[in-house]
Amino acid sequence: MTDILKGTSIIGFARGAQHDATLSGVNPATGVALEPQYSPVSADELAQALALADEAAIPFSETTPEKRAAFLNAIATEIENSVEELAARGPLETGLPEARIRGEAGRTCGQLRMFAGLVEEGSWVHARIDHAIPDRAPIPKPDLRCMLRPLGPVAVFCASNFPLAFSTAGGDTASALAAGCPVIVKAHRSHPGMAEIAGRCIQKAAQDTGMPEGTFSLLFGSQDLGQALVEAPVIQAVGFTGSQAGGTALMKIAAARPQPIPVYAEMSSINPVVILPEALAEKGETLAEGLFGSLTLGVGQFCTNPGLVFLPENGTEDFLKKITELVSGGSGATMLNAGTASAYQERVKELSDSAGVTTLALSSGEGAPAVFLVSQEAFANDSSLQDECFGPATLIVTGPQENLPAILAQLEGQLTGTVHATEAELAENATIVRALQNRVGRLIFNGFPTGVEVCPSMVHGGPYPATSDGRSTSVGTLAIERFARTVSWQDFPDAALPAELQEANPRGIKRIINNTHSS
Amino acid sequence: MTDILKGTSIIGFARGAQHDATLSGVNPATGVALEPQYSPVSADELAQALALADEAAIPFSETTPEKRAAFLNAIATEIENSVEELAARGPLETGLPEARIRGEAGRTCGQLRMFAGLVEEGSWVHARIDHAIPDRAPIPKPDLRCMLRPLGPVAVFCASNFPLAFSTAGGDTASALAAGCPVIVKAHRSHPGMAEIAGRCIQKAAQDTGMPEGTFSLLFGSQDLGQALVEAPVIQAVGFTGSQAGGTALMKIAAARPQPIPVYAEMSSINPVVILPEALAEKGETLAEGLFGSLTLGVGQFCTNPGLVFLPENGTEDFLKKITELVSGGSGATMLNAGTASAYQERVKELSDSAGVTTLALSSGEGAPAVFLVSQEAFANDSSLQDECFGPATLIVTGPQENLPAILAQLEGQLTGTVHATEAELAENATIVRALQNRVGRLIFNGFPTGVEVCPSMVHGGPYPATSDGRSTSVGTLAIERFARTVSWQDFPDAALPAELQEANPRGIKRIINNTHSS
Repeated sequence: MTDILKGTSIIGFARGAQHDATLSGVNPATGVALEPQYSPVSADELAQALALADEAAIPFSETTPEKRAAFLNAIATEIENSVEELAARGPLETGLPEARIRGEAGRTCGQLRMFAGLVEEGSWVHARIDHAIPDRAPIPKPDLRCMLRPLGPVAVFCASNFPLAFSTAGGDTASALAAGCPVIVKAHRSHPGMAEIAGRCIQKAAQDTGMPEGTFSLLFGSQDLGQALVEAPVIQAVGFTGSQAGGTALMKIAAARPQPIPVYAEMSSINPVVILPEALAEKGETLAEGLFGSLTLGVGQFCTNPGLVFLPENGTEDFLKKITELVSGGSGATMLNAGTASAYQERVKELSDSAGVTTLALSSGEGAPAVFLVSQEAFANDSSLQDECFGPATLIVTGPQENLPAILAQLEGQLTGTVHATEAELAENATIVRALQNRVGRLIFNGFPTGVEVCPSMVHGGPYPATSDGRSTSVGTLAIERFARTVSWQDFPDAALPAELQEANPRGIKRIINNTHSS
Repeated sequence: MTDILKGTSIIGFARGAQHDATLSGVNPATGVALEPQYSPVSADELAQALALADEAAIPFSETTPEKRAAFLNAIATEIENSVEELAARGPLETGLPEARIRGEAGRTCGQLRMFAGLVEEGSWVHARIDHAIPDRAPIPKPDLRCMLRPLGPVAVFCASNFPLAFSTAGGDTASALAAGCPVIVKAHRSHPGMAEIAGRCIQKAAQDTGMPEGTFSLLFGSQDLGQALVEAPVIQAVGFTGSQAGGTALMKIAAARPQPIPVYAEMSSINPVVILPEALAEKGETLAEGLFGSLTLGVGQFCTNPGLVFLPENGTEDFLKKITELVSGGSGATMLNAGTASAYQERVKELSDSAGVTTLALSSGEGAPAVFLVSQEAFANDSSLQDECFGPATLIVTGPQENLPAILAQLEGQLTGTVHATEAELAENATIVRALQNRVGRLIFNGFPTGVEVCPSMVHGGPYPATSDGRSTSVGTLAIERFARTVSWQDFPDAALPAELQEANPRGIKRIINNTHSS
């Protein structure tokens, strides 16, 4: 299907009107605006989307897992049916190569089907049952049963750097819908066409599988729209992937509401990599090649980009020579949009001008890789060196290994932390690993942080400011728990309980009964 | 053991100095100040407690589950050894009867032992393992494993209404220690002596079982101390039970930190009770007796006190006559402190003066029970009627059943919601139950909300403003999850993994392996 892009919001099963079309995608390679122009959602349309989500909240939360799974699977099918359109539009809007768009479409469909499977299997609700003990003294024990239930309508903000997998039909939307929460997406101005295509897929799937109309809306608009969404009383949680400035602004709005709500913002991370001496001696050049590959993947526009590397005091020559050579020989590429490109250029300039920082290599052109060197002392004295540089730049810190636990303890929260070491070195340096573990969501041994596996054991999260809520992950099955809360039923008749809590366990899920895991 | 109360803070394994002793407990029955005077913690002592907690964070998080369980069990034993002292001091400080203090000591020890058992069993960490698939195309799948890890030092604020079970050694402290987080408790000015006795028990248990010194401190001081604690960079989460004003103040402080942290504040709830016509017709008088019992338990000073009752439009005569008779014949009792008593008196006056509200009965004296009547319409038009009245007062709302879903949907978040109905009525009124379910943490059928069972299926939580974080519970085993976050390990050698994630499962816990629950 290759419908013409309409340039209007999706309000439940309808489309918004065309009016004051002032937003449009821009081809970052040429600077030329792309058709169509997009109409910002009107105040009435926003109110309509919110009212529909409010109406849908209870009915959608009561849909059976099978129906919700069918809906999620139908979205995946629709996206697959639209992959040619996405592959044509994506590179124009984002500068990302077609193969990446196709790959990301695959990941997006995979995520949707993963959540469909999770919901259909059903044990994610963490059902627990404690049977009554009517003759307990001094007072009888009531029958108590609990499980996770959806929070209510969720506002999702699209990310610039993942126009599919972290955008309209991405992980936040998939996990919120899977939990049973209606979703209102705010499109990213950087890829409105891809948002519209994905939004159309969700709208069609919702209609085809009989979901309540307010289950999904997609809105185009400015920052004011974002603020209005987070302030809306109907909205019960927020999902966001983007800058620290954007994420913290939403956190403040959410905290200032009459009813504060949770914000799951994945914001910024420089993903420290610690290389220990034996590993460096054994494979310094290979590590430099691995670092360069991870650093420049997707023009460095990944949340898990390795922006900080700790090297030992000595034996660094081969590594530094190789990484300098690779970066010098590297070339830039079109970045996601003009704002990202200029912010990267500016931050690279700041880094190169920072006290004690040596520029080892900086290739030329937009999105050109860069590598800098600094001493542990200079790094420890300048906390601004921890500010994210979104793009293919990395800062190498050298100095004595014994200082690492204290330096790592002073790092801001990070999505990931990596250790390159021999197994013997790893065992001997538990204090380094523990200090790193305390600051990150995911620890990696002898690998690189880019490449985020979508699976039950993934944590793509981490202490603030990597995310707004270090207890959560935005990738993997655990992401669903962000949009749910536990509710308890006391002494309810079996027939009035949700199926998951009924005595006969009609859904056949894993439960904890009288403090014992069911088999 | 009946040591003399010292009137000083507990700073790790030491005691604070006596200086400027300006705080003391007051006997609420007589208004007379109790010995000793308590010294507010000095700035240096606070800094010392925070530094100790910081130092203890990693070592305490690495204690084995067996050691942490032994510590929790030792606290319970120490409290049992101090029960005579608590039973002597408690009634003087709180006005609560000795039997209640003894009962609460039992519950407190039960909670500590429950968390000891939970930690020793070990499955609470939700371990997940996804094995590597090295030959997966196009890219290999890494080995990923994740589990819950402690957040770091936690500040706990004691509650006035549960001087043991929600105070120094109460549920917040027990669950945070169980998770592996050091705890700094701020004592409640209303029962400093009980705080000191319980704090001494924890200090002794920590020393006897070899915990790091900073695992626990107990501080005496004013509101400024509370603010300083929540602002301290070392503190990573907050547990609080108290007023909405107090809880929201802490939420604002926590949100304004350079690193915002989670606040688990259990604040206020009026615990709506819905009585449907058949149930009313079958047992109106019995329901009135049950309501009166629940309402006046502990002089109405429970978070789950039933402060709001929805009756049908007709057939209410017997119920209203009975509850009026019971309340008129009831008598007051000493409340927890002078502030609580005067706030209750004031709120009762406000309610009786509210437009459309009829005072059915109001007995005399401090903490005297009261019952008011209002129409659905007047209730819906005055949101201030939803403000908590902390004490034995309840507001009865009468009107057509068909309006209930809309009225319930407009209620603020509540800890509990109760339905009295025949089973047939319950089945016919699913929309009422769903509307209530959406606003509460715990639904109760044909019971009363007071009496909070401590067990795995309990949710003592609920949407804001019942709590600051509707995803959490402060009672039951799930409370431990408030103080933990999931961390993921990628491609780590088995020996470098936490025991819970090692391939051989040396702790024998339940795990999810390759998306399948282990048996």
